[in-house]
Amino acid sequence: MADNWLREPNWSWNDSLEPSGYVHDWVQRINEVESVPECILYGAPLSKSSISVSGASLYPEVFRRLWKQFAAYNFEEEIDLTSYSVADAGDILMHTTDVAESHRRIEIAAYALNQTFPKSTLCMIGGDHSTTACAIRGLKRSQPNQTIGILQLDTHLDVRDPAEYGPANGTPIRQLIEGGVVRGEHIVNIGLHGYYNTKQLVEYAKRHQIKTYSMKETRKIGVSRLIEQELKRLSSETDLVYVTVDMDVLDISFAPGVPAATPGGMRTEELFEGLLSIGKSPAVKHIDFVCLDPSRDSRIEETCRIGVHAWLQFMTGRIMNKG
Amino acid sequence: MADNWLREPNWSWNDSLEPSGYVHDWVQRINEVESVPECILYGAPLSKSSISVSGASLYPEVFRRLWKQFAAYNFEEEIDLTSYSVADAGDILMHTTDVAESHRRIEIAAYALNQTFPKSTLCMIGGDHSTTACAIRGLKRSQPNQTIGILQLDTHLDVRDPAEYGPANGTPIRQLIEGGVVRGEHIVNIGLHGYYNTKQLVEYAKRHQIKTYSMKETRKIGVSRLIEQELKRLSSETDLVYVTVDMDVLDISFAPGVPAATPGGMRTEELFEGLLSIGKSPAVKHIDFVCLDPSRDSRIEETCRIGVHAWLQFMTGRIMNKG
Amino acid sequence: MADNWLREPNWSWNDSLEPSGYVHDWVQRINEVESVPECILYGAPLSKSSISVSGASLYPEVFRRLWKQFAAYNFEEEIDLTSYSVADAGDILMHTTDVAESHRRIEIAAYALNQTFPKSTLCMIGGDHSTTACAIRGLKRSQPNQTIGILQLDTHLDVRDPAEYGPANGTPIRQLIEGGVVRGEHIVNIGLHGYYNTKQLVEYAKRHQIKTYSMKETRKIGVSRLIEQELKRLSSETDLVYVTVDMDVLDISFAPGVPAATPGGMRTEELFEGLLSIGKSPAVKHIDFVCLDPSRDSRIEETCRIGVHAWLQFMTGRIMNKG
Amino acid sequence: MADNWLREPNWSWNDSLEPSGYVHDWVQRINEVESVPECILYGAPLSKSSISVSGASLYPEVFRRLWKQFAAYNFEEEIDLTSYSVADAGDILMHTTDVAESHRRIEIAAYALNQTFPKSTLCMIGGDHSTTACAIRGLKRSQPNQTIGILQLDTHLDVRDPAEYGPANGTPIRQLIEGGVVRGEHIVNIGLHGYYNTKQLVEYAKRHQIKTYSMKETRKIGVSRLIEQELKRLSSETDLVYVTVDMDVLDISFAPGVPAATPGGMRTEELFEGLLSIGKSPAVKHIDFVCLDPSRDSRIEETCRIGVHAWLQFMTGRIMNKG
Amino acid sequence: MADNWLREPNWSWNDSLEPSGYVHDWVQRINEVESVPECILYGAPLSKSSISVSGASLYPEVFRRLWKQFAAYNFEEEIDLTSYSVADAGDILMHTTDVAESHRRIEIAAYALNQTFPKSTLCMIGGDHSTTACAIRGLKRSQPNQTIGILQLDTHLDVRDPAEYGPANGTPIRQLIEGGVVRGEHIVNIGLHGYYNTKQLVEYAKRHQIKTYSMKETRKIGVSRLIEQELKRLSSETDLVYVTVDMDVLDISFAPGVPAATPGGMRTEELFEGLLSIGKSPAVKHIDFVCLDPSRDSRIEETCRIGVHAWLQFMTGRIMNKG
Amino acid sequence: MADNWLREPNWSWNDSLEPSGYVHDWVQRINEVESVPECILYGAPLSKSSISVSGASLYPEVFRRLWKQFAAYNFEEEIDLTSYSVADAGDILMHTTDVAESHRRIEIAAYALNQTFPKSTLCMIGGDHSTTACAIRGLKRSQPNQTIGILQLDTHLDVRDPAEYGPANGTPIRQLIEGGVVRGEHIVNIGLHGYYNTKQLVEYAKRHQIKTYSMKETRKIGVSRLIEQELKRLSSETDLVYVTVDMDVLDISFAPGVPAATPGGMRTEELFEGLLSIGKSPAVKHIDFVCLDPSRDSRIEETCRIGVHAWLQFMTGRIMNKG
Ligand SMILES: [Ca+2]
Ligand SMILES: [Ca+2]
Ligand SMILES: [Ca+2]
Ligand SMILES: [Ca+2]
Ligand SMILES: [Ca+2]
Ligand SMILES: [Ca+2]
Ligand SMILES: [Ca+2]
Ligand SMILES: [Ca+2]
Ligand SMILES: [Ca+2]
Ligand SMILES: [Ca+2]
Ligand SMILES: [Ca+2]
Ligand SMILES: [Ca+2]
Repeated sequence: MADNWLREPNWSWNDSLEPSGYVHDWVQRINEVESVPECILYGAPLSKSSISVSGASLYPEVFRRLWKQFAAYNFEEEIDLTSYSVADAGDILMHTTDVAESHRRIEIAAYALNQTFPKSTLCMIGGDHSTTACAIRGLKRSQPNQTIGILQLDTHLDVRDPAEYGPANGTPIRQLIEGGVVRGEHIVNIGLHGYYNTKQLVEYAKRHQIKTYSMKETRKIGVSRLIEQELKRLSSETDLVYVTVDMDVLDISFAPGVPAATPGGMRTEELFEGLLSIGKSPAVKHIDFVCLDPSRDSRIEETCRIGVHAWLQFMTGRIMNKG
Repeated sequence: MADNWLREPNWSWNDSLEPSGYVHDWVQRINEVESVPECILYGAPLSKSSISVSGASLYPEVFRRLWKQFAAYNFEEEIDLTSYSVADAGDILMHTTDVAESHRRIEIAAYALNQTFPKSTLCMIGGDHSTTACAIRGLKRSQPNQTIGILQLDTHLDVRDPAEYGPANGTPIRQLIEGGVVRGEHIVNIGLHGYYNTKQLVEYAKRHQIKTYSMKETRKIGVSRLIEQELKRLSSETDLVYVTVDMDVLDISFAPGVPAATPGGMRTEELFEGLLSIGKSPAVKHIDFVCLDPSRDSRIEETCRIGVHAWLQFMTGRIMNKG
Repeated sequence: MADNWLREPNWSWNDSLEPSGYVHDWVQRINEVESVPECILYGAPLSKSSISVSGASLYPEVFRRLWKQFAAYNFEEEIDLTSYSVADAGDILMHTTDVAESHRRIEIAAYALNQTFPKSTLCMIGGDHSTTACAIRGLKRSQPNQTIGILQLDTHLDVRDPAEYGPANGTPIRQLIEGGVVRGEHIVNIGLHGYYNTKQLVEYAKRHQIKTYSMKETRKIGVSRLIEQELKRLSSETDLVYVTVDMDVLDISFAPGVPAATPGGMRTEELFEGLLSIGKSPAVKHIDFVCLDPSRDSRIEETCRIGVHAWLQFMTGRIMNKG
Repeated sequence: MADNWLREPNWSWNDSLEPSGYVHDWVQRINEVESVPECILYGAPLSKSSISVSGASLYPEVFRRLWKQFAAYNFEEEIDLTSYSVADAGDILMHTTDVAESHRRIEIAAYALNQTFPKSTLCMIGGDHSTTACAIRGLKRSQPNQTIGILQLDTHLDVRDPAEYGPANGTPIRQLIEGGVVRGEHIVNIGLHGYYNTKQLVEYAKRHQIKTYSMKETRKIGVSRLIEQELKRLSSETDLVYVTVDMDVLDISFAPGVPAATPGGMRTEELFEGLLSIGKSPAVKHIDFVCLDPSRDSRIEETCRIGVHAWLQFMTGRIMNKG
Repeated sequence: MADNWLREPNWSWNDSLEPSGYVHDWVQRINEVESVPECILYGAPLSKSSISVSGASLYPEVFRRLWKQFAAYNFEEEIDLTSYSVADAGDILMHTTDVAESHRRIEIAAYALNQTFPKSTLCMIGGDHSTTACAIRGLKRSQPNQTIGILQLDTHLDVRDPAEYGPANGTPIRQLIEGGVVRGEHIVNIGLHGYYNTKQLVEYAKRHQIKTYSMKETRKIGVSRLIEQELKRLSSETDLVYVTVDMDVLDISFAPGVPAATPGGMRTEELFEGLLSIGKSPAVKHIDFVCLDPSRDSRIEETCRIGVHAWLQFMTGRIMNKG
Repeated sequence: MADNWLREPNWSWNDSLEPSGYVHDWVQRINEVESVPECILYGAPLSKSSISVSGASLYPEVFRRLWKQFAAYNFEEEIDLTSYSVADAGDILMHTTDVAESHRRIEIAAYALNQTFPKSTLCMIGGDHSTTACAIRGLKRSQPNQTIGILQLDTHLDVRDPAEYGPANGTPIRQLIEGGVVRGEHIVNIGLHGYYNTKQLVEYAKRHQIKTYSMKETRKIGVSRLIEQELKRLSSETDLVYVTVDMDVLDISFAPGVPAATPGGMRTEELFEGLLSIGKSPAVKHIDFVCLDPSRDSRIEETCRIGVHAWLQFMTGRIMNKG
């Protein structure tokens, strides 16, 4: 493959002489790994596809810059993360003005990574939610005979009409359904709440048999339990599961740094528990974290820190699954 | 020229041609409604009556500006808000320096609305808490033979002495008791907590048999259950219930945008559940939301967004009551 | 009851009954004007074409919202702005994800306005600097036989290679030169300074005979005097002059609200004087104000206020030219 | 044990044992002075009389809190401030809701201070601009046979109609003219600029022969020179001069912390030079600093710091006048 | 003149004439108490010993400034705080550049207070966590034959190596163990969570038998119940208990104002309940609150307010223990 | 020399494949340079020696991170910076709690760099002003027979007594005088103004014949002209000149990001002109930029950007001197 569009991240990896016990020393650059990594990380710094103004394209750089402040050890689960191999494949080079071209590159990168490392878990750091449709198309192109299921944590259904908005961040789920990539009944959305989806969109979701759980229902069952139950179901009905975490699923009081923060959302504690369960599931092949906008975050970067913590919960789950 | 792509700006002549599914298209101007609206909204942009510096007078304008970001559909309860008719009667014109005159105008407005639309639920958007005393006096003047009960959600008792402060935002409950408008035993205050009421004020409340529930007690019973129980009791002892929501009842970590935010308060989730119960109660005749100060809110306007969401929960409850 | 004190909210039906003396009452909607307006205003809310994250698309709405705080009277020049007729043609509807389509619409809008109102001065409120190339192409298409000169106030040359960036905000001048729309020697750039243009770009500008003045040279001559001299020269060499004001020409300590604020730039006082001179020039046919990003502005919206003031200086100049 | 290192907190019993060289040690409490102080300082913490939301009532407290960060020595003029005696008379107690009563108290306080200390220069720290009318009325009541001249530094004329606004911060000059306290021709306003006074108000000022200088004219003459010239003229036509400094005369890029900051205003450097000249003038009997709103200031309190510096410039001028 | 309405400013001579019911009137200066106070408060404004930049030295002053906004009455427990005597001993004078000397002074101060007031509960307001080691050494020096137990609420173990960092805020627990002041098995740490302690440090803690509870375990048991259980155990194994509350134990969404805020931490509600239990325990001899950094706090000072509330919960507990 | 304490900076140098024309591609790492660099840059990230809370230790990292946004070309002087060789020697490793040890390391690093590269201009990025005394001591130790002159741009004299404060940021000049390293008459301080030095300190400066120029005097002469005149004088009286730029010399409205910003200071334009003159002077051997505190900077990092721009002005001057 001539060019998979991945470029090295704007990150120092500044080469400690001895292992520090922190995340930046644990994650390796993809061109330095010696064996196939268990997980591959890549960034998709695109947010021009957002309906409102979004700086989510800034997140992959901040995400890596914060690694130095996180230990590679989960205290609660007593898990040493360094027992799991993670490689950073860098960021996909985006075009400045051609959104369609940028989307094409994300699709190619996801395709290429899955082709080259078919056994590795993939983890994409967005960017806005439009990138999810690209990654899933890339995965599908790489594994055309496999049925894909989606677990989405989101405040929104993301089924607006691409005919009206183009491939924007409000449309990925509908793109995938109408493109024949994923079937509606293989999509589960957890975290919907309040007044943030119009009746018309809810009706679309029902018509296409997307399975939805409101925060209220979710809390009655328990976030982790519900996720486990739905991942189990999805894995029995599909060949592989893609998980997409729209960080705006979190309540506005916990996560201000998203373009459309809302009251009534998920608490970080609930998201963290849920990500342990997701990490533990062998069916999960690819995960992404999207719509985290550092330019709207508070002065102490709380949402970005929550973002790193969330990703580490998934990593912890992966190891618990192994062990 | 078929289409020069020019569209009218988002400034003054922005009437949508077709319903968008959002709140600003659902609420109608009062001079355009064709039948008696089920609910009438009006603003009381006064906060010069506040003991500390307050910009709560700015809230009615921000409240309406944010409507565009809320769908007229409650996902959790599967309620289409457009089945309920709401009219916006606009803001009461306040005097620049004469607080007593401004108070008089609020009283007249509440009186006039109740006289003209006796069957409609009224909803006042403050302004500070002094406006509540005015609205209740207006209601009482319109219905002199009816006994009024008050359900107050607040961090404070609001029984400071008007002889010392004048008709300030710390005094409305005492104004009403001493003015003979409402009796102490017909007042319930839920949400009191911590170190925000002096012993002297607590003793006044006890002396006048105001019923109070601390956050700790409230949580033991459950916010919604307690509200239902107290609304039931009030409705058996009075003719109509006025609900006043001081947004400072919320915890400082959820709602920074009030003049006196405190730790130890109510969570948004609890308030939202409580407002469903309030909306469902047929006894509730008038509600207000006060003391939300946009000038102290965070950069992403989280408290103002919570304010709109809170009001929509009441609306949802109203519809659930109907159906 | 004669007066219930209720007034319509500041939301949608706020037409003043009598002229207030403020800008929002002076500017008319284009569909309400009775004769051809002397100046037509239109918004181009596009900033997805920016190289870095930009919220400049938010400016047209904020620009209009601030009008209420500006009197239609210039104290220093004793000019009553209401003697000049200005119509607001609204905003151009942008596509959510197709930047090329959005650019095409701006071009069409500029073309259509010039065709319909050939004698009116046009004023475009950006949006980022890519919109300038579109407006000039529209103007050229409408007046194909006229030679266009450009006066640019900018920290940057904007001659990056469209082959690399696409039609981004760093490329408009080069687009116009390479598209044969404007010749390099008919372009003057005032305000360049410091370390914000690479050597390669400076060499491109020299090669194409773009006339440049650094802030240091500019100050030696005087901003107004230099502008007058260059407008005179341009008007002798071309048929009409287009002025483009990139608000990032201002110093970072005066105007934080732009995507790339720099030290060493122009002071507001200098810009305001320069805009009087620009307004006075009969050669100026079209002006734009671009790259003002409200999402980066300070809490008191100082850059946005400077933006409105700057536009009013141009208006004042227009009237001084008339009289 | 000789020393347990505990020191009294910076809270209540912080009287230094030895002079520190800073402002808080130089200014004395009025109940502790032993002879008649050359200057008396008092606070008027009222801003409920403001047309827009204002926290200017918070300024007197912040003003004093910052004293610890200012040395009682002017480096440029080599002036030791401690050679001049200043007493702090504290703040006037404001009523919570009765603006008229608060205004009455300011008038009484100004009257009482002038009666008790007829030779001392008075200095009032506002509060909003409505307080100026009260202080001047108090002064007039104390010296009924003296003609008062006013030097006003302001972006605004402050001649709105009290019949419409009541005694608000936009009306003090008109209150004084219409109340027969000061004649229009004895009022000079320096600092007017831009688009911040309607034509109607400008015409009122002209009709009443208020002398106005725009920033543009002022700069041509020089701020200090113009102030000296006008103080000289005023002192020849009146018995005593009252100077009122509305901090919003400063440009928005220098002084964000006022309710209505505008571009095009005075630079701090110009204000500081002007205040030296004002301080030097023996005609000046009373000065005030108003409309500084700490709640709108930047995080580093720049406007409040400018406020203290400005006041110290006046003090320096006073000493230069003595010497 | 009966009353000129002037009141002393809120600056230095603000002793209320009559008790207000607020905290600043309840707490007494240590040089004014007439009998031995039940609790003595002192400040240790040192944060130069912090590994990252910290402004925790600013907290004691803000802590006292906020007292005016807290009533001396606990609504939930119906406790009148004024029934308990508290004296403020002021702040320990810190050296500007000699951290070791500053540490020595804290140790001396703690020693001296315990010597002089052996029966009083001591309460230190930090400062960073390095101050805890000093206070405990002072206490030990005063009571050399008593075994000290430590209850620590913290996100971190604080057992980094002093040989590498010096007596920094990451090392106090290790300093005490290696200095033989406290034994590892007499230390309990509650609140540890997430990815904020390296494996190496966790192993050190295990090796020294420090008892640790993660937030997850803590929540299963209940914060208060666990604290009660561990205080009981500690009091059976040691002679006196020192409680240290590192405010960074709180979740980043509740308490932004600490140098190292993290997601996944304790909620304020949990901390407040825990502090009631701590206050009730007769074994607790000394408590501190550390690492609260006002310079990182939000604009409305939420963490500082939480800090005062937290301290008042401990006070409430003390009184409940008495009664 | 076994260890000069310099460590590689926390910066990516992320290796463009082709030169970009920006600063990060121009500056080389010291371990990669092939010949002796004309200028060597090093960071001294220490601010625990500050009298007030300071985050100036954070500046070296931010300084390097911003390089990507600056072109290596000065537009006004038409200077290509890449014609001058600059090496980055990284940051000096600071001790966490031992300020004296950190100071010792800075002295060693300055000594070592001068020993190893005796012909290179040195440039230290602070850190607070205490680091200047260390660097000068290191230089003196390396060149014991050379007389050192100091040109200081500062709001403060920095002659507080080390006996009272230790080697704090308020004392470096006095340390050097009393340590016999530099004589008072070889020190020039430009930029002093307002009320920010006590009389006692001014008298110390006079006694030791430090030459001082207030901003007022400086402006009368012109910043550049005065600097040229004083550098000429210093170079005739001493062997080499050390320039120290305390960024707090800038006015608070231009540079908020310093621990003690003041009104009345230098404008950025003046500083930039002055630094050109400093760069041009062959007598200047070493320069530093200190007291820039990113944690107090505005959201758009204006002071940090001014810091980079300022340093580039010095670089430009160096090249103009060469050519
Ligand atoms: Ca989404
Ligand atoms: Ca979403
Ligand atoms: Ca209330
Ligand atoms: Ca309240
Ligand atoms: Ca540009
Ligand atoms: Ca530009
Ligand atoms: Ca005024
Ligand atoms: Ca004004
Ligand atoms: Ca700790
Ligand atoms: Ca900690
Ligand atoms: Ca200094
Ligand atoms: Ca300094």
